[in-house]
Formats: sequence, C-alpha cells, structure tokens
Amino acid sequence: MKSGFYHNTPLAFAIFGGTGDLTKRKLIPALFSLVKEKRISDEISIVLVGRRNKDVIEFKEELLEFVKAYSRHKVKKDDWEAFAEKINYCRFDFEDEERGYNDLAKILENCHDRIFYLAVAPGLFEIIIKNLKKYNLIERDTGFQRIMIEKPFGFSLESAGKLNAAITKIIPEKKIFRVDHYLGKEMIQNILSIRFGNSIFEPLWNHHYIDNIQIISTETIGVENRGGYYDSTGVVKDMLQNHILQMLALIAMEPPVDLEPESIRNEKVKVLKSLRLFDKESAQKNIVRGQYGRGIIGGVEVPAYREEERVSENSNTDTFIALKINVDNFRWAGVPFYVKTGKRLDKKTTRIIVQFKKLPGINFYKNLNNGKPNLLVIKIQPEEGVFFQINAKSPGIDLIEPVKADYCHSCRADYNSPEAYEQIILEAIRNNSSIFTRWDELECSWKFEKSISESFEGIEPNFPNYAAGSKGPVEAAELLERDGRIWWDTFI
Amino acid sequence: MKSGFYHNTPLAFAIFGGTGDLTKRKLIPALFSLVKEKRISDEISIVLVGRRNKDVIEFKEELLEFVKAYSRHKVKKDDWEAFAEKINYCRFDFEDEERGYNDLAKILENCHDRIFYLAVAPGLFEIIIKNLKKYNLIERDTGFQRIMIEKPFGFSLESAGKLNAAITKIIPEKKIFRVDHYLGKEMIQNILSIRFGNSIFEPLWNHHYIDNIQIISTETIGVENRGGYYDSTGVVKDMLQNHILQMLALIAMEPPVDLEPESIRNEKVKVLKSLRLFDKESAQKNIVRGQYGRGIIGGVEVPAYREEERVSENSNTDTFIALKINVDNFRWAGVPFYVKTGKRLDKKTTRIIVQFKKLPGINFYKNLNNGKPNLLVIKIQPEEGVFFQINAKSPGIDLIEPVKADYCHSCRADYNSPEAYEQIILEAIRNNSSIFTRWDELECSWKFEKSISESFEGIEPNFPNYAAGSKGPVEAAELLERDGRIWWDTFI
Repeated sequence: MKSGFYHNTPLAFAIFGGTGDLTKRKLIPALFSLVKEKRISDEISIVLVGRRNKDVIEFKEELLEFVKAYSRHKVKKDDWEAFAEKINYCRFDFEDEERGYNDLAKILENCHDRIFYLAVAPGLFEIIIKNLKKYNLIERDTGFQRIMIEKPFGFSLESAGKLNAAITKIIPEKKIFRVDHYLGKEMIQNILSIRFGNSIFEPLWNHHYIDNIQIISTETIGVENRGGYYDSTGVVKDMLQNHILQMLALIAMEPPVDLEPESIRNEKVKVLKSLRLFDKESAQKNIVRGQYGRGIIGGVEVPAYREEERVSENSNTDTFIALKINVDNFRWAGVPFYVKTGKRLDKKTTRIIVQFKKLPGINFYKNLNNGKPNLLVIKIQPEEGVFFQINAKSPGIDLIEPVKADYCHSCRADYNSPEAYEQIILEAIRNNSSIFTRWDELECSWKFEKSISESFEGIEPNFPNYAAGSKGPVEAAELLERDGRIWWDTFI
Repeated sequence: MKSGFYHNTPLAFAIFGGTGDLTKRKLIPALFSLVKEKRISDEISIVLVGRRNKDVIEFKEELLEFVKAYSRHKVKKDDWEAFAEKINYCRFDFEDEERGYNDLAKILENCHDRIFYLAVAPGLFEIIIKNLKKYNLIERDTGFQRIMIEKPFGFSLESAGKLNAAITKIIPEKKIFRVDHYLGKEMIQNILSIRFGNSIFEPLWNHHYIDNIQIISTETIGVENRGGYYDSTGVVKDMLQNHILQMLALIAMEPPVDLEPESIRNEKVKVLKSLRLFDKESAQKNIVRGQYGRGIIGGVEVPAYREEERVSENSNTDTFIALKINVDNFRWAGVPFYVKTGKRLDKKTTRIIVQFKKLPGINFYKNLNNGKPNLLVIKIQPEEGVFFQINAKSPGIDLIEPVKADYCHSCRADYNSPEAYEQIILEAIRNNSSIFTRWDELECSWKFEKSISESFEGIEPNFPNYAAGSKGPVEAAELLERDGRIWWDTFI
C-alpha cells in the first residue's frame, strides 16, 4: 500500500447502469466526495450510460437530491455545479448499439486513463466488455483502462466460471476489478493493519491460544425493494459467499510476504482453499437455515418474508444462516469459525469476535468459574473499532469481572472516514487490486457455496422458522450450546 | 482472597502515634469510611495513644476537620457523632509508663480482637511491642491480636535486621503486618487479577515477547513539611526500596500455586532474590542520581531542595533516581527494568509500562519504521486503569498509527474505590497478609538498597542537577537512549 494517495491526472469514469440505484445512492455521492476532497483529479469526466431516455438537466437535479441525501458532505451550490458539469449522460443499448459505443468513444477521446464501472445485471457483463474491446475503448496504447465489475459475479460455480472464461478471453485478469464493497470498509482494511502492524497478536493467533472465531453480521431490515433479486439469491449468495468469506480470509490468512496486492491475495486464496466443504451429513449437523416470519421491529409490525413484494408466497429462500466452518490447515485445525448472518434480526451489527482459550483450570478466582474468556472484538459496523475483553478487579472488592479496553475508531474527533465505495473507486484508480476479488478466490468461494447448496437439495425446510425482530431460529443457539459455547453478539 | 469481606465482630483498634499526621490524614478518615460503609463492625473501639496532653473534646473537633478534608464521604453530623463516641484518647509515654499500658489494657478489656497500629518513629517499635507483651495486651487466649507497623521498617539492611530479630523474639511473624500502603492501591491489587485472571498475557509475559518494563513514579511536590525526615532518607529508601520494588515483584513474579498470602509472597521473594545487585562500576553505568534545584511548577517559583526547611544547605540527599535493573532469572534474562522516580518533576504519575518487542523487520508498513511498539500500560495513579497501545489504520488513509484501547477503572460510574489505607486496615483485620511485606521480602529489598548506597560511597554528586518542574537530570534520558529506548511517560 502507498500512503496518502491522490490521483491527479485526467480521468474518465464511465458507469454502465448509469440510471440505476447503485449509481444514484453510492457511486455519484462517492465521486462527489472524492473530487471535493481532491483525492482524485478535478479533471474527471463522468459518463453515465443508460438505456433510458433522460433529460440531462432533470437527471442532474435528481442526482443532486441523492448526493444531498447520501454524501458525507454538506453540498454547497458551487461545488455541485462544478461537479455536475463533469457529468455526461449517454443513452444507448449496451448490447448492440454501434452508435452508442462510438458516442462514448468520442466523449472519452482525450482521456486515456479510463475506468468502466459495470453496475448492470450480470448477464450483460460479457457483451459490454466485448463491445468495449470491439469499439477500441479499452485496449489503448497509453494510459490505463480498467473494468470494475459489481457483484454478483455469476450465480454459481458454473456460471461464474463461464463468465470468467468469457471475459478473460477478451481482457486480462489484471484489468478486472471485481467489486466486494465490504473490502472498502475502514475496519475491514484495518484487519491487516491490526494483525500485522503489531507484535502481540501473531504469537497468539493460532489454535494454541484461540478457542473459536465468530463472524456475525446481522441486519434488522428485510429485503426492502429487492424482493425479486433476493428471492432468487438468498443469504448464502448474498452475504456468505462474498462478504463473510472475505472477512474470514483476512482474519485467518498467514502473514503475506509483503503488502503487494498479489501477495495478500495469494494468502487469502490459501485460506479459502482450506475451507472444509460440506456434504449432506455435515450440513445437517453444522448448518442452521432460516427464513423470517412476521414480527415486530422497533415497535412496528413487519410482514413475513413470503409476504414481501416480488417474493414467491411459497418461497424456500433462506434469509438467515448460521454455520460452523472448519479451516483445515496447521494454524486453525480444531478452531471452529462460527458464522451467523441474516435479515430481520434483533439488531444491526457486524463484528468479528476472536475468543481466546480459557485459563487452565487452576481456579485462581473462584467467581470466574463460569466467567468470561478473553476476547478481541473487531467492530466493523455500525460502530467501528476494536476492543479487548479482559478480566480485572471489580472496584473496591475482591471479585474479578470482565471489562473492555476499547478503541473506538468511529468516535475519533478526526474521524470522517470515506464511504466504502469511495475507497473502492480510489483503490481501483491506484491499481491496488488487493481489495478486489481475484478469480481464484471467487472460484473457491463458489465451490464452498456449491457444497452448501447441494447439501440443501431435496430437503424441504420448515419455513418460516423465526420471527422478524428475534435472534433467529432457536437451532442457531443450540449449534453453539452443543459445543459448550455462546454467540457473543448478545453479551458484548 | 475471599470476596466481599465484612468484619462484624467487636474490634479494638489502637493507634500509637495517635496525634500524628498519619493518624489525622489517613487512619481516622479510613476508619470512618469503613464504619460508615459497614465494612467493619460498628462495635469498634478506637484508642488513640499519644504523649501529648489533649483535651478530648477539642481533639475530636480537630479530627472532624481532617475527616471532612480527607474522607471520600460527605460527613453527616449524625454519622460523625456516632463515630466520635468510639474514639478514646490515652495519654502516656510509650517507652516506660506502666500506668499508661494498664489504662490501655482496661479500655480493651472486653475486646479480644485487637489491632495495634504503630505510626511512630521506628526507634520506638521494639519497646512498644515489648511493653504490649509485658502488660499482657497481645498474647491472649482468645481472639486475634495483630500489630501493624508503619514504614520505615529500619533504615538499612543492618538496622532492619536487628529490629526484626528483636521483635520476632517477642511475637511471631504471623502477627506482624508491615505496612506498605502502595499495596492497598486498587491498581496494585489489580496487577495480579490482570496477570492471572486472563489467558492472553501469560504466553507473552517473558523475554521472548517483552522488550523492557518501565516503572515510573513521579511527583510534582517537594519534601513539604518532611524535610528533616527526608534529608536523612532520600529517594532510594523513601520510594525505591519499598513501593517500587513491590511493584516490580508483582509484575515480574511467576504464577503462584494459588492465591493464598504465603504463596504470593513466596513468588515475590523469588523475584527480589533475583535482582542483580549493583557494584561501583555497574552503578556508575546504570544509575542516575539527582537532586532538584530551584524551578517553576504550575507557574510558581519553588525553592531548591537545599533551601527547603530542615534540609542541610550542603545536603547530598537524592530526590531523584533513574536506574536500569536486571532480574536474573529464566523469565526475564535480557529484559531491562527501567525505574524512574523523584520529587519536583514535571508531572505526577505512577505507571507500569510493559513494552513488547518490535515486529520483525519485514517493513510491512514503511511509515512505522521509527514508530511505536506495542505497550501494555497499567495506570496506578492519579488515573487508574489499563490500556493497550496498538497500531491501527489511520482513518481514511493508508497510514498506521498508534492508538489506545483503554480501560479506565477510575472513570467508571460505579467507582468509589477505597483509599489505600482503608484497604490496608481491612486486609489486616481479615488476615490477608499478602498485601503486607514479609521479612524475607524486606531483607532482599534492603540488600538491594545496600548495594546502591555502597556504590555511592565516596562519590561527591554534582547537586543540584535538575530544575524543579523539569524531567529530571538529562542523564536519565541518556540512560535509555544508550539502549535505543525512550521513557514512555513523556509520550503516552
């Protein structure tokens, strides 16, 4: 990694899917912040490519409203007007319209550093890339041309493999930046800094001292307006296969030889290759599926998943999963990784909890017999930071009790941290591919996903099996109770 | 240790030196708090023994003023009156007055659990104990009789040895509670809880992972009204030989077999026996002495040590010492213990800093080359607590920087911790001798002190050598610079 990176040469940033939700809520506010903070060049040309007819002036008004709503900055009139001037809208059909690609080529003519952001349905990735090549937009003699591909990258091991084979026939891997926006989050980036920027963690970071690791990512929201998409996807493909496995890889990886992107990705892929795949028997024992029924969240009654818009009324899509994962390597043999993630749960939190082994049973402190082990907790969101749970003397009396030694990253006075998408865009510009997913990582993740999906085949789940606003299916708690452990999200 | 101890049978508490400063500022306010919080029995009889003629009513008025000034509690009229009724004053000459001891015996007649607190000049310890025995006050058939002895216990290895031989001829070691009030401080008691109540520290707690340990205890005050005493004592006997070495022993000791007082003291004495003694040559190299000159503290000009009341104008007494101590055992070989303590320095702070070794030189983070190692800091006073200094990502950019994961014991909402003297009194009542100094501990400390004093003999120090309100002699900083290290008190 380099420090204090600022990009200061002219840049073209073209977004396919330029009228979509991601563009309006995330990409345009992110670009606005990056320009405002002069983290990227003022000489940026933003081209939104869409199939809809749009009046450019009205569209920019619409974008302004989104920037006001989603940017970290208070939007000043002058700033917006200067920024809005950089935006072009280019209407054409991505699949075949020669005129459109030629128009785009003309707009980009004088700028050779180009990022193409594909925020479209995955079925369109291949054809767009093919056309970008055909119309000579990406294989230039000067500057860089990179393609950022929004998830999902395929829907299965097979479809992802096919997609990858198709696009890498057109352009080399090094130009492809597969986006997993979780990797742009401050505390996800902080995992490596903490693990490898300190001397006290590495000696403890293995099966000798660690009892188990929990990755918990829960939401209170339901599927919102994404019912159609979600119903064909489910929690395993929406959360586990990408975000969760990426967090697991960062927590579990060996130290890389250096911090070059490929060195980091080499180590991550080793972890993903070490994941023990499931079969029907092990899945039955170690995976708890769930789908939410009606319930109450924040005092308001909310519908069951099957009652959501564009969701099948007999849907068996999972909105919750809890599982025990084994990482079969020398470092982690015998240390379970417990994962819990789902929608419509009782709170919104993403945390990684490293639970250390208990003291040997020498009964120093009698009141600690059923007490708390040491934890290192990495708080990803909403609060960001890290804390140790250690035992110390209760004030004034002779008991010991767990206390927190806390570092709150997001509470800092100097905290005004970039949004994940700002970071993602910036890192693609600076060619830091470490926070994008390499194909072999993705292939392993999809293999793991496949082992889960196949183990579910032919089994009719008894859905819905948890109430919205609850802690999820009771079997999730039992999964850990069986091992004499607890999920920490309830207790810390 | 037992938890939630409360003493609830009648108790007699006799203080020799009953009109002295310690009684008024510390012991009476402590007893008041203990009774008010019902931590000791309401049926307590407090006997102040002194040589002065005192009008009891006036004396109690005087004590009330001290309790108001020094107690943790707001003093209510009713509480004070109930408490004041328990106080008797007994005037006599400790050394020979038969009538006096007989009077005392009469007052204590119906109470067999007895604590005698000797807050007198050390020259009087032996004769008082002899008389207590002679007049049959301490060797009773029922109840307990214990003697608390305020420091200093001797002035040298020889005088302490003689004193000890004399008093242990009269009463057994187990009845003797040698007070070091530092051991009553919350965070000193917390050292063992933290070290042995957690699993993450013990694996790191040795020369493999620890670079050095610093014990820093600095004051801004001068000798105040203790000039006469201090001038014949100096910093080595006033701070190092007792408080500092006790802290060192707790930080460095092996895990005891259990938390019984003798088990703990057995391990402490092993550390004290492992201290490498100084000779003239090693002292020259590893000890920095100091005495303050005039200076400015809090904007006010303050006098030099030699200008203080009852201090010789040519005094060569040390008011500052910095030294590098070696603990020659398997755990700590090669790990220096740096100690710094003194009066009239730039701030008041007592802290123990465990500095871990740096990362291996793999240069992960280029900006960390001259950066900060990991620290575990135990804050003894004035703020109490513990923090880790770890490196983490700076918000929003790719640098790493040291941050604190902090547990503040004294900031807690439920914090209203006993004063050290409350704890000391309570632990003597409950017979927890672990927080009192056993003779063999003291003997080792005096041996260590002797090796220092002897190495100073015949050397004329160039005093004064630091200004009041400064960081101490410049040679103290050089002592660590030479080893490529820094004193942390300036930086954390």
